[in-house]
Amino acid sequence: MSISSRPGQRANDSLRPVRITRGYTMHAEGSVLIEFGHTKVLCTASVEEKVPPHKKGSGEGWVTAEYGMLPRATHTRSSREAAKGKQSGRTQEIQRLIGRSLRAVFDLKALGERTISLDCDVLQADGGTRTASITGAFVAAQDAVNKLIAEGKLGASPIKDHVAAISVGILDGQPLLDLEYVEDSACDTDMNVVMTGAGHYVEVQGTAEGAAFTRKEMDALLALADKGIGELIVAQKKSLGE
Amino acid sequence: MSISSRPGQRANDSLRPVRITRGYTMHAEGSVLIEFGHTKVLCTASVEEKVPPHKKGSGEGWVTAEYGMLPRATHTRSSREAAKGKQSGRTQEIQRLIGRSLRAVFDLKALGERTISLDCDVLQADGGTRTASITGAFVAAQDAVNKLIAEGKLGASPIKDHVAAISVGILDGQPLLDLEYVEDSACDTDMNVVMTGAGHYVEVQGTAEGAAFTRKEMDALLALADKGIGELIVAQKKSLGE
Amino acid sequence: MSISSRPGQRANDSLRPVRITRGYTMHAEGSVLIEFGHTKVLCTASVEEKVPPHKKGSGEGWVTAEYGMLPRATHTRSSREAAKGKQSGRTQEIQRLIGRSLRAVFDLKALGERTISLDCDVLQADGGTRTASITGAFVAAQDAVNKLIAEGKLGASPIKDHVAAISVGILDGQPLLDLEYVEDSACDTDMNVVMTGAGHYVEVQGTAEGAAFTRKEMDALLALADKGIGELIVAQKKSLGE
Amino acid sequence: MSISSRPGQRANDSLRPVRITRGYTMHAEGSVLIEFGHTKVLCTASVEEKVPPHKKGSGEGWVTAEYGMLPRATHTRSSREAAKGKQSGRTQEIQRLIGRSLRAVFDLKALGERTISLDCDVLQADGGTRTASITGAFVAAQDAVNKLIAEGKLGASPIKDHVAAISVGILDGQPLLDLEYVEDSACDTDMNVVMTGAGHYVEVQGTAEGAAFTRKEMDALLALADKGIGELIVAQKKSLGE
Amino acid sequence: MSISSRPGQRANDSLRPVRITRGYTMHAEGSVLIEFGHTKVLCTASVEEKVPPHKKGSGEGWVTAEYGMLPRATHTRSSREAAKGKQSGRTQEIQRLIGRSLRAVFDLKALGERTISLDCDVLQADGGTRTASITGAFVAAQDAVNKLIAEGKLGASPIKDHVAAISVGILDGQPLLDLEYVEDSACDTDMNVVMTGAGHYVEVQGTAEGAAFTRKEMDALLALADKGIGELIVAQKKSLGE
Amino acid sequence: MSISSRPGQRANDSLRPVRITRGYTMHAEGSVLIEFGHTKVLCTASVEEKVPPHKKGSGEGWVTAEYGMLPRATHTRSSREAAKGKQSGRTQEIQRLIGRSLRAVFDLKALGERTISLDCDVLQADGGTRTASITGAFVAAQDAVNKLIAEGKLGASPIKDHVAAISVGILDGQPLLDLEYVEDSACDTDMNVVMTGAGHYVEVQGTAEGAAFTRKEMDALLALADKGIGELIVAQKKSLGE
Repeated sequence: MSISSRPGQRANDSLRPVRITRGYTMHAEGSVLIEFGHTKVLCTASVEEKVPPHKKGSGEGWVTAEYGMLPRATHTRSSREAAKGKQSGRTQEIQRLIGRSLRAVFDLKALGERTISLDCDVLQADGGTRTASITGAFVAAQDAVNKLIAEGKLGASPIKDHVAAISVGILDGQPLLDLEYVEDSACDTDMNVVMTGAGHYVEVQGTAEGAAFTRKEMDALLALADKGIGELIVAQKKSLGE
Repeated sequence: MSISSRPGQRANDSLRPVRITRGYTMHAEGSVLIEFGHTKVLCTASVEEKVPPHKKGSGEGWVTAEYGMLPRATHTRSSREAAKGKQSGRTQEIQRLIGRSLRAVFDLKALGERTISLDCDVLQADGGTRTASITGAFVAAQDAVNKLIAEGKLGASPIKDHVAAISVGILDGQPLLDLEYVEDSACDTDMNVVMTGAGHYVEVQGTAEGAAFTRKEMDALLALADKGIGELIVAQKKSLGE
Repeated sequence: MSISSRPGQRANDSLRPVRITRGYTMHAEGSVLIEFGHTKVLCTASVEEKVPPHKKGSGEGWVTAEYGMLPRATHTRSSREAAKGKQSGRTQEIQRLIGRSLRAVFDLKALGERTISLDCDVLQADGGTRTASITGAFVAAQDAVNKLIAEGKLGASPIKDHVAAISVGILDGQPLLDLEYVEDSACDTDMNVVMTGAGHYVEVQGTAEGAAFTRKEMDALLALADKGIGELIVAQKKSLGE
Repeated sequence: MSISSRPGQRANDSLRPVRITRGYTMHAEGSVLIEFGHTKVLCTASVEEKVPPHKKGSGEGWVTAEYGMLPRATHTRSSREAAKGKQSGRTQEIQRLIGRSLRAVFDLKALGERTISLDCDVLQADGGTRTASITGAFVAAQDAVNKLIAEGKLGASPIKDHVAAISVGILDGQPLLDLEYVEDSACDTDMNVVMTGAGHYVEVQGTAEGAAFTRKEMDALLALADKGIGELIVAQKKSLGE
Repeated sequence: MSISSRPGQRANDSLRPVRITRGYTMHAEGSVLIEFGHTKVLCTASVEEKVPPHKKGSGEGWVTAEYGMLPRATHTRSSREAAKGKQSGRTQEIQRLIGRSLRAVFDLKALGERTISLDCDVLQADGGTRTASITGAFVAAQDAVNKLIAEGKLGASPIKDHVAAISVGILDGQPLLDLEYVEDSACDTDMNVVMTGAGHYVEVQGTAEGAAFTRKEMDALLALADKGIGELIVAQKKSLGE
Repeated sequence: MSISSRPGQRANDSLRPVRITRGYTMHAEGSVLIEFGHTKVLCTASVEEKVPPHKKGSGEGWVTAEYGMLPRATHTRSSREAAKGKQSGRTQEIQRLIGRSLRAVFDLKALGERTISLDCDVLQADGGTRTASITGAFVAAQDAVNKLIAEGKLGASPIKDHVAAISVGILDGQPLLDLEYVEDSACDTDMNVVMTGAGHYVEVQGTAEGAAFTRKEMDALLALADKGIGELIVAQKKSLGE
């Protein structure tokens, strides 16, 4: 890997320090503060003994997500979505992505007719909030499921595998792992990758912000993502004591 | 004071432990986590070099507040206001109260044509979120003002006095200071009091939830509030190193 | 009481002329035009034989209120909330206050599973619209209850006591009863007080618009409110032929 | 005219009693309570020294209207549009009709770059609210224009002619003038006609609620409307002292 | 008929070329592209085996309509109503008119408890979009009904008669049939007429855009509308192979 | 390529018939009906001589997109977004994708301070509506640019390269090109790929609907997408007469 000029002398293929704090707040069935460097997201998992209309009577449960950003999580204050009366397209895209990513590792039949709602609220943003959200929401969901098992409401876990996510991108021709804000806003290509513990893809979303990217660049980015997600899954397991 | 049966053996005239953490997040000009027992509110102060239309060209600044509650700050998940597309009447009442309370100690002329926005977001709720918000927002506003002074944007502080707030109430005939959730939801009368460092009232909002209250009960509640707010102002000063 | 410079030579402790006209419109179960001087509010009470979801199956009824201001009730035209697509925070605060105030004198169990909706629409505003609304809504509610009793739908009245409200404030150091618009917009402290016939408080909402107020000032204001509300309850009784 | 079975023994070609009360509220430049029998509409005219964007710099003024119904103006309570967050299609249709009708008799050039807003709020409904609104709004607009002339803001009146409106319909094969609610809800055809003082049509809106109507029926309805509008214009003139 | 200066040398009493294309799209039970000259509206009829709440359990069906205009159906782009978050008053008026017009020829009892939704979407606008919508929606509804009969879901047709609509207007003193955009935007009076196959009126909506119109002018317009609608009904029948 | 069981005996690596009709409607600067088999999308390009706020004074233009689906474009009627008052998360995701994809081939500096709005409205849906939208919007944008050049408003084209898009997916273990609806709703993995004429990626969005996908599967999908997009760009060129 070439000599890096990344903030904090980080190597191109290095994650920022990852911290996962379980039990961050007291009411939710799962409550995790996840930090990717300066990015801090509070992920809570709430269990409700009901399902949305499209699942009623199906014998299946549901896993869904909502995403939000505190107004001053960012460099300059952004207006509060509740006050504006609508969620932005960006917010909706991200929360749909988190929901799909988590459902990918859930056996909804085994969950039974209940809903797990994952709320990912960004307390401080420095790039990678959606990937931190997915990675932290998994741990919160795991805690909620363990609670259901401990209470005898579930016999076995409906979670089939780990899931985690990371961003990768190309900046000045260099493929970089885990972009922080200054990198993200300057990069040519930005890719978010969601993978399972088995190393398979759940989502790949690559976008050329500047120049279109080549197949070779994509291969380099996927390799970086592979590495980063492997490390995140280790961090999840460590945090969960697995 | 009579023998108490409050949670944690708290005396009727005692505050819960108050913790004020400055610099809780990094982007805002002021960022304070305030805790009243299990209630935790993140209060950020954001400075913008512009004013709303009704202040344009007036030579005066503006101080305003917004309030939010994370969906799982509470015992059961409440729906996200941004997703519902509107703020509840309760939310609007609270954020209007916070804004008025802070403006009461600001000299808007001395602030100049700029806006300080106070965002109070409840991470964990256990009663008293609006009074914690006011008390914490004052510290965040102070930090933001100090930053403006340090940067030479303000010559003197536009803050005229401290402001803090506490709830008091009557439960089973007993006047209590600083209600926590189980007390708040069971009490007959609930009063929120906002006072300055000089010991004057900015807001008094008393509500009979059950039986109407007498003048004598009101006097007892005001005396408790006096005591509590005095202690909160000491805590603010200590936190600010004054 | 000192020599007054109030509009119309009114004494500091005098109400404006109060007029209560029952049966102002023909469809509602109770329909009252209440006037506090130039302030005119139409208060209707509508009975519906159903309750909102949180009361279903409880055996209890519900009492709720909505508040509105005609666009040209005021000196300059204000925009129509229905056209803007949302009620202001002020409107929501007021209608929540009216609802709580009326519920304070209702035995919801005795009302049975039905709803009384109080609509308070300001035809002409000159200060004190919320206090006139509460005072008039009580009479409209009483008429609606009497109709239910006359029709045999209720055996006894679920109304436990009278309720009325008045504003008091401090202008140029003088405590004043029943502020009209020019006084309200210039005063330092504005307090709305809601009391029962028994002389107990239902709501006390004091706000320092300018300087914070002292305990002594508050005592003076509460004494004025006591006097005013006593007179309003006499007016209610006279109007109802009690 | 055949023997009538209309409520109150009204003849088929008779209007209900029409009452026009000017100066009903005190703030608006024109304020008229108009009553068609039990239907009561408060029509205010507000002058603002500005125009909407599409008229800016045109040298022309604008005349516009808004319509509302108090929740309990009707037999059963209808929900408040401000609370629902949107105006119904019916409301929008009616306010667009009132605005077009009034503009038909205004010389917008002669009005100058100012706006007259007509607010028509139904206090009590018994059929014909939109036609009463147009007829009353004309008187309110006239008062507002007279005030502008009296203040020297206008040299001559921009109002070119009177405008008034009435409903007609066919019930049990009988053409009827000025339908009240019980007739309106049962009729086969309902037509609203807006005419000028010169006897020309501004709007004709006929709707078959049940069976489609023939040309002969339409001719009978237009003749009735002619008669009724003539009488309304007499009433307007008498009220205005012309 | 006088010498015409209409676009394309069209006579004052001539329709533009009318084209009706059935089966324009494949999913809807009825799908018709109707063209009045350059005006092109796609009318689909969708059958759903349920009714809105006010018809539940009534044994009757419902027929309703929605109307939309693609953003660039017009000379300059108009903003998308879905993006703005509300339908304009004009859109609501038109869709209510289409719904009433179609219901006028339906026996809702004979339809049974099902709903026919008519979606009229303007692909290209050149005047007369609402009248083309009604005329085309009838054909789409007929196709949907024929499908229900063919499938054995209906024994006999609930459609009692044809319905069609045309605009007429006065431009430079000349009564004109079927206004196209340049005529519509310049005319003094604009009237939309909806008639049944039996030659009776369902709706007559005449509006004076400039000068009010006389009874004689109205008679001339109604005669033109009669002629035009007769021709449209022939076109509907031909298209349906009746 | 293995023996196919796709609808219409289509080979796994074959596109559905692609038809591009320019000048489909008359008002827009570019108007294209694009068909991928039964999927039909009307793409219009509208030029406006202004830019959104974030581009004002920048010397740069803007390219943006909106997407809509007619209510009965689909098998069963979906509710109209304009009537519901909000665009779904899916709609917002798609229109953001179309906008980004087109901007990727535009030199916004060379476009000058004007906006090209691409409206993609689905008349008939059978899978692949977003990819058809991108492919068709490019042709509409090209037509709009050519018109600007012909009118002398632009000296040279701001379009740097072609852009087109296709969906690929895995169904029963088989990688398939250009999924139609029955395939799309049953597949395990669904990927939308947007590429330039130079063969570089603008967007890659792969989603595991069922099982997560392997790197080898992704490689197979990308190869299929390469082939399909190459053919689409040939179709664009042929349609444009390049």
